[in-house]
Amino acid sequence: MPHLRTLCVYFLVALSPVMTNTITEDIDVLVFLPQNNSYLFSYERVAPAIHYAQKRLKADGGQYSGFNFNIQFENSDCLYDAFFTLADRSCGQKPDLILGPVCEYEAAAVVRLASHWNIPVISAGALATGFANKNKEYSHLTRIAPSYVKMAETFTAMFEHFTWKSALLVFEDDREQRNCYFTLEGVYHLMSNYNIESYVLTEDKPLDTDELLRSINDMGVVIMCMGADKIREIMLAAHKRQMTTGKCIFFNVELFNASSYGNGSWKRGDEYDNDARQAYAALNTVTLLRTVKPEFENFSIEMKMPFEKVGLRDCNDCENVNMFVEGFHDALLLYTIALHEAMKNEYSKKNGTEITSRMWNRTFEGIAGQVSIDANGDRNGDFSLMTMTNVEAGTYEVVANYFGVNGTFQLLPAFNTEHFTLKGGDKDHPEKTDKSDTPCKCMLITCLTLMAIFLVQCLFSLISPRPHRWTRSVSFDWSHSRSCSGGCNPCSILLFQKKLQNYH
Amino acid sequence: MPHLRTLCVYFLVALSPVMTNTITEDIDVLVFLPQNNSYLFSYERVAPAIHYAQKRLKADGGQYSGFNFNIQFENSDCLYDAFFTLADRSCGQKPDLILGPVCEYEAAAVVRLASHWNIPVISAGALATGFANKNKEYSHLTRIAPSYVKMAETFTAMFEHFTWKSALLVFEDDREQRNCYFTLEGVYHLMSNYNIESYVLTEDKPLDTDELLRSINDMGVVIMCMGADKIREIMLAAHKRQMTTGKCIFFNVELFNASSYGNGSWKRGDEYDNDARQAYAALNTVTLLRTVKPEFENFSIEMKMPFEKVGLRDCNDCENVNMFVEGFHDALLLYTIALHEAMKNEYSKKNGTEITSRMWNRTFEGIAGQVSIDANGDRNGDFSLMTMTNVEAGTYEVVANYFGVNGTFQLLPAFNTEHFTLKGGDKDHPEKTDKSDTPCKCMLITCLTLMAIFLVQCLFSLISPRPHRWTRSVSFDWSHSRSCSGGCNPCSILLFQKKLQNYH
Repeated sequence: MPHLRTLCVYFLVALSPVMTNTITEDIDVLVFLPQNNSYLFSYERVAPAIHYAQKRLKADGGQYSGFNFNIQFENSDCLYDAFFTLADRSCGQKPDLILGPVCEYEAAAVVRLASHWNIPVISAGALATGFANKNKEYSHLTRIAPSYVKMAETFTAMFEHFTWKSALLVFEDDREQRNCYFTLEGVYHLMSNYNIESYVLTEDKPLDTDELLRSINDMGVVIMCMGADKIREIMLAAHKRQMTTGKCIFFNVELFNASSYGNGSWKRGDEYDNDARQAYAALNTVTLLRTVKPEFENFSIEMKMPFEKVGLRDCNDCENVNMFVEGFHDALLLYTIALHEAMKNEYSKKNGTEITSRMWNRTFEGIAGQVSIDANGDRNGDFSLMTMTNVEAGTYEVVANYFGVNGTFQLLPAFNTEHFTLKGGDKDHPEKTDKSDTPCKCMLITCLTLMAIFLVQCLFSLISPRPHRWTRSVSFDWSHSRSCSGGCNPCSILLFQKKLQNYH
Repeated sequence: MPHLRTLCVYFLVALSPVMTNTITEDIDVLVFLPQNNSYLFSYERVAPAIHYAQKRLKADGGQYSGFNFNIQFENSDCLYDAFFTLADRSCGQKPDLILGPVCEYEAAAVVRLASHWNIPVISAGALATGFANKNKEYSHLTRIAPSYVKMAETFTAMFEHFTWKSALLVFEDDREQRNCYFTLEGVYHLMSNYNIESYVLTEDKPLDTDELLRSINDMGVVIMCMGADKIREIMLAAHKRQMTTGKCIFFNVELFNASSYGNGSWKRGDEYDNDARQAYAALNTVTLLRTVKPEFENFSIEMKMPFEKVGLRDCNDCENVNMFVEGFHDALLLYTIALHEAMKNEYSKKNGTEITSRMWNRTFEGIAGQVSIDANGDRNGDFSLMTMTNVEAGTYEVVANYFGVNGTFQLLPAFNTEHFTLKGGDKDHPEKTDKSDTPCKCMLITCLTLMAIFLVQCLFSLISPRPHRWTRSVSFDWSHSRSCSGGCNPCSILLFQKKLQNYH
């Protein structure tokens, strides 16, 4: 009998992988993250999250515990490092999975080659609009963080809700990481049915508040993306001209707490604080929806530990969990789910197409909450709208949420419709309104904004590395924009021309 | 004694490679050319020239006859084929030399990877301005055909000679090969000290002769690059408005007889032939200088033979030798000279940097004449200026030549200064001239042209695949434009702003 019991135990142990669907496999993961700590997605910040995910998957003893991840980190310099590292690996040392890079330009080159080599790529970056085209060169890319176009859905939902027709996009182009530039590209791309104009600030084109406020006044709704100090300067100037009393609606986009985004703070301890507080009563901030899942707290605490240990001096806020840290954690999870499913169905780990397709159109539980990847392999995003609900105290509250998975715009109790009602009539045809005594100057301003729009789209072409026959199928209809695979320059020309025709 | 004689013969035979400096080496050459015959640089057209060069180098029995070229042709689809083919070769099968690709976008990706792998690349294409930056990503590229910027030197020489100050660039953007688009980019880039504006025609923006002629009238000098029919349409319209009598100077660029360029012909056999002939008396054509070296004739005849044999139906003018055919012939010659020199100096064939540097700053005898590569690895170009010298007969003659190697502008006996004298005063400040009764319309036209300039530069960014810290060192001074390595977008913004300031 003891023998029989022993035999049963052995039998159960032998069967357990089958019973729990455990599959044993070695997986080579190549991760591209910057060694340079100035990035929000640097190795120091993100690597602990990937290791955390790896540990959890192993420790569970569950169906994924048979996967042995051999994770190799390589530098991403946001130029060519990652691409060259990958290109040097065609001798059978190809990884099974690539995580990163985040930077748009570098990601484009890496994803193109990885797609050619049938290797799945998951990135918490590559957020620019061009990557949404998965037809060919970006076929193996899954985006685990909500892209800029997903953020832009928040605006289309609001514009539809409030029946606004026009918007001025004002952004600062730092010409390095270009967060704001790519962020508002998403808005521009998605809101093609609206009257959208742009105003770009660069290092060499300082803020001209008079010029800008005239444009804001013409358009009614302004969506800004720039550093906190510039936002404050604009809001103060607008307040001085009584433009913060409902005549215009001001938005600020703040996505992942990078310095390139404003942080909604009016307070500086200077003589303008009082005015700024009042001005900011008209400023609404669109930001990522924050989750409060209990497991996230544990994760967050664990993420802080390495920094407390090593005490990195050159890494500000390294211990704070951001979208990239979460994203790369969830990336390993998502891949594991898809790989397991594919292998259960007799597919090899080398079948990147199959594994990629199983990551798409999938919802799973990520570290910070539910993660939903759409049918195009891009994560649906949830965003919050914050406004100042106590002007005396100058404090903010979330007044509405946008849920990307079902496209709903949820108004919270603190929401005040009056706050979002444009006072000042129809802004749809700014060129028809009464102009000043210098008609040419007015036309010039319009031209300026038109040119700025054009600038936005033209520069976007940088991220779309090779035109892929897009030139043949361009059309005035933006619904055809998918035909502009790999670069929508021609479309932007057409839009530009289309807009221009109104002035003839 | 017979033994001694035999010994001497053996000794001489054994010594002969040393005496003639013959070096024996196997060289792997990877050539990227389109299988598609619609390209002027298709495999069918160019491969015979490469084999011709190979045969001559071998047959000479001279110092280069020890090199055994193993030439492998791979398809270039002007998208990613060449790049993927190269990327798949990192397993020790890397070639010693790459010839091509010609297409700008594809060349950018191939040259970047080849430079990283220390492989010399010689192309008769990659003519766009961005490739001139050899600091990093294009470090191993030698351009064996004169780039568009080299052609543009012809215009700077003329502008200096005739003291013109302004020019309107008018080009048709076919959005495929984009010959004209890249051609006039070169002009735009080089003539930054002049007042340059642009006017772009696309499939979706048909020619509006009224609008265009107003702009031409404002600028005085117009440089056109487009198909022959559009050129004729413009010239006829200009003639009708008495603009072909010296009030404006018209140029047409025609580089390699592609259909995208005009061919200077006014004759169509239609009712407008007489007017067209008179109109074309004001049209000057800048084209490649034709050589008449006797050896070239033999080469030319030999190039025709394969086509006579196989009688390809889908290959119009395949038997004609063009710039690309010549270029790829000379490419193998240039590489051989440099390789031989490097190996004589104990460098390996794998030392791409060394071999590349020995191809630069070198003048040698090519198949069609002397070829001079500048210190930056780009071929100096010779160009001809043609005008109609007999209006009755409607015939053309070369009236001047530009020699890139020393920057001289040679006036030939048929040259007539009167023909190039702008009648109608200073066109430097078109915005200051008397405008029509619709001032805003005038301003709009100016805006239009400004936007067009902007368009040119923006779109150029497509060929410069990754911005390489260019964003940090941009400056208003175009002399710093080399700092815009890999993409001159920010500069174009600045220029755009700089130009705009004139209107404030």
